[in-house]
Amino acid sequence: MIFSRIKEVNSEELSFDEATGRVLSKDVKSKLNVPPFDRSAMDGFAVRAEDTFGADENEPRHLQIIGSIEIGSASDMEVGRGQAVEIATGAPMPKGADATVMVEKTSKENNKIKVFEPVSPGENVSSAGEDVKSGQKVLEADRRLRPSDIGMLASTGNLKIQVKRRPKIGIAITGDELRKPGKSLKPGEITESVSYILAPAVEKCGAEAVRLGIVPDRFEEIEKIFNNASDFDALILTGGSSVGEKDLVPDAISKSGELVFHGVAVRPGSPSSFGLVDGTPVFSLAGFPVASVIAFEMIVRPALRAMQGLQAKDFRMEIKAKLLRKLSSSLGRMDVARVRLKKDNGDFFAEPIRVTGSSVLRTVTEADGLVTIPENSEGFSEGDVVTIYPLDL
Amino acid sequence: MIFSRIKEVNSEELSFDEATGRVLSKDVKSKLNVPPFDRSAMDGFAVRAEDTFGADENEPRHLQIIGSIEIGSASDMEVGRGQAVEIATGAPMPKGADATVMVEKTSKENNKIKVFEPVSPGENVSSAGEDVKSGQKVLEADRRLRPSDIGMLASTGNLKIQVKRRPKIGIAITGDELRKPGKSLKPGEITESVSYILAPAVEKCGAEAVRLGIVPDRFEEIEKIFNNASDFDALILTGGSSVGEKDLVPDAISKSGELVFHGVAVRPGSPSSFGLVDGTPVFSLAGFPVASVIAFEMIVRPALRAMQGLQAKDFRMEIKAKLLRKLSSSLGRMDVARVRLKKDNGDFFAEPIRVTGSSVLRTVTEADGLVTIPENSEGFSEGDVVTIYPLDL
Repeated sequence: MIFSRIKEVNSEELSFDEATGRVLSKDVKSKLNVPPFDRSAMDGFAVRAEDTFGADENEPRHLQIIGSIEIGSASDMEVGRGQAVEIATGAPMPKGADATVMVEKTSKENNKIKVFEPVSPGENVSSAGEDVKSGQKVLEADRRLRPSDIGMLASTGNLKIQVKRRPKIGIAITGDELRKPGKSLKPGEITESVSYILAPAVEKCGAEAVRLGIVPDRFEEIEKIFNNASDFDALILTGGSSVGEKDLVPDAISKSGELVFHGVAVRPGSPSSFGLVDGTPVFSLAGFPVASVIAFEMIVRPALRAMQGLQAKDFRMEIKAKLLRKLSSSLGRMDVARVRLKKDNGDFFAEPIRVTGSSVLRTVTEADGLVTIPENSEGFSEGDVVTIYPLDL
Repeated sequence: MIFSRIKEVNSEELSFDEATGRVLSKDVKSKLNVPPFDRSAMDGFAVRAEDTFGADENEPRHLQIIGSIEIGSASDMEVGRGQAVEIATGAPMPKGADATVMVEKTSKENNKIKVFEPVSPGENVSSAGEDVKSGQKVLEADRRLRPSDIGMLASTGNLKIQVKRRPKIGIAITGDELRKPGKSLKPGEITESVSYILAPAVEKCGAEAVRLGIVPDRFEEIEKIFNNASDFDALILTGGSSVGEKDLVPDAISKSGELVFHGVAVRPGSPSSFGLVDGTPVFSLAGFPVASVIAFEMIVRPALRAMQGLQAKDFRMEIKAKLLRKLSSSLGRMDVARVRLKKDNGDFFAEPIRVTGSSVLRTVTEADGLVTIPENSEGFSEGDVVTIYPLDL
């Protein structure tokens, strides 16, 4: 339901060296041969391979040194029959030569060498375009760029590239009881912490987070946030989403736009809703930190990835681990359990974290990963091997 | 040999909301109870639990509503025998009440309710300090802070924290043949790309990268870099490290300081060296992109983590996968193979990437992970289950 309503962001031009972590919006082709010329892959002597055929310790081949080529310099020399050119690793092969004899397989005296082993044509030579040919596709659209990709862009002459714009995500926290961190608290008030979790979580997904502050639990105040919906690629609101008297956010979504769903069969995070206001996706999450964090992981993160075209590729990391304690769940809803991972003798073990209250953020900070228990399962037994999604939240 | 010569960086104070990805330099204790007061975990009625004992559909208990408490507000009301206070989720419990009856288990008429199910003392109440008690340790020294930790810092009143300084790493690339990206190339010259890989790789380890540019293959030029060694927590030099005529970097380390080792039994990356100049660790890596990337992963990354005190904790992610093709290796050295990962029916499969030349960066950009083949092994067979380290380079 979410994916069908998510639009991919458009693209922008960026310098290659600022693009780590960004997502390509089109295929990148090489503008050059890499390497740009035939070069020696060894220190030694550039030769005509056929001049070395049959060489061995007892019957070395004798060649005349006609010069040397250093790395970084070119030469007009041409290697003729019976000739050799001293050459450094990475230096361009001289005309006429088709192989390099390693220096260790030769002995040199004045301007002559003895060659003790034959080389075949092409041996110890990196030929032009061996890594990449000019015009060849080197990186595909929808790829999130890693450091080595940045090197690939540099060496293929792609100094300006088209990448997806970072989705701009507004984060608003509703709750009359909430105060900014550092404000002194009157009885009944608590410190707002969820926006400080969601903002870096959004940034880690490759998007830009804009904190819109604390919004009072009043319909008009939530509508004010929606007035600027089109400034954002998505909005995340927390609080005001359960089934009590103050279920303001889903109602406000309905009034200002389209409420697509209200409530999911996932625990924690069941009061999550989703809708569109002025075409902008709006995620309404529970106000409790744990529920909002898990709902972010299960519902918002995949959407932020889809906005950048990452959904299909770039699989999710997962680890198989043996459960150290049983994990119970109720039929009819997906449970998301938090586990500590331990490594012993190369194997991973998962220890479920005991949950005492729905708001206990410690169960997230202590967790290394999540296990999902499907809605048609009553849980896993001790010793079962389960799939763990490492938690980076 | 490296770890015994690495010093941990000192610490600095930082605002909690700028600390994602940074490493704590001391334990963090809560300055508050979280939640700060007993609060209702449900919408309903705050009651004395004993007043509900024995209640059922046929014999409901009758209670008098004496007021209501909204979230964010406090009240001086006291719940006496036979009384109840209407209460919202998250609102502070009134004096006298020790449980909340969910609204669904009641029916209300004027200022009276019927209660159809008993509650036990503490039921549907989050007590003060349930998540975290004031003075309790909530995050340990040497932890790399995740988004949920930032929320924990906010809600426990830790707005200024001590984190490790980001290690400052200088990156110098040696090679007479190298030109900056965008410069036109004369015959024999190539584009420098390695510093553009290593800089974001260093940043991803939590350190700060300073590109020192291209250094000519001359002893004096390398010594100039070493003159400023003490400005950095470590230096990485590439090139000038193999066994040819221009092995300048290890020689320069020897002359300016202490060369700890020269060469490792790992392929690719065997020409790697390590030493100290003015107490600053210096890594000398091969000039070829692939060799320098693998050497970074195997040798430099663990050192950068150790500088931040991360070595012991925060285990390395790994995936078990079945090999789709055999992987051969030579005895006496560790081989580092690059593999593509595929997922089929919940299982991971690893396809080794064919290597044609030592400089072929494509074998890194196409890889999803690395497999190490120990020095006492001749490789793995098709179908063997191997450990894959996901590649983020």
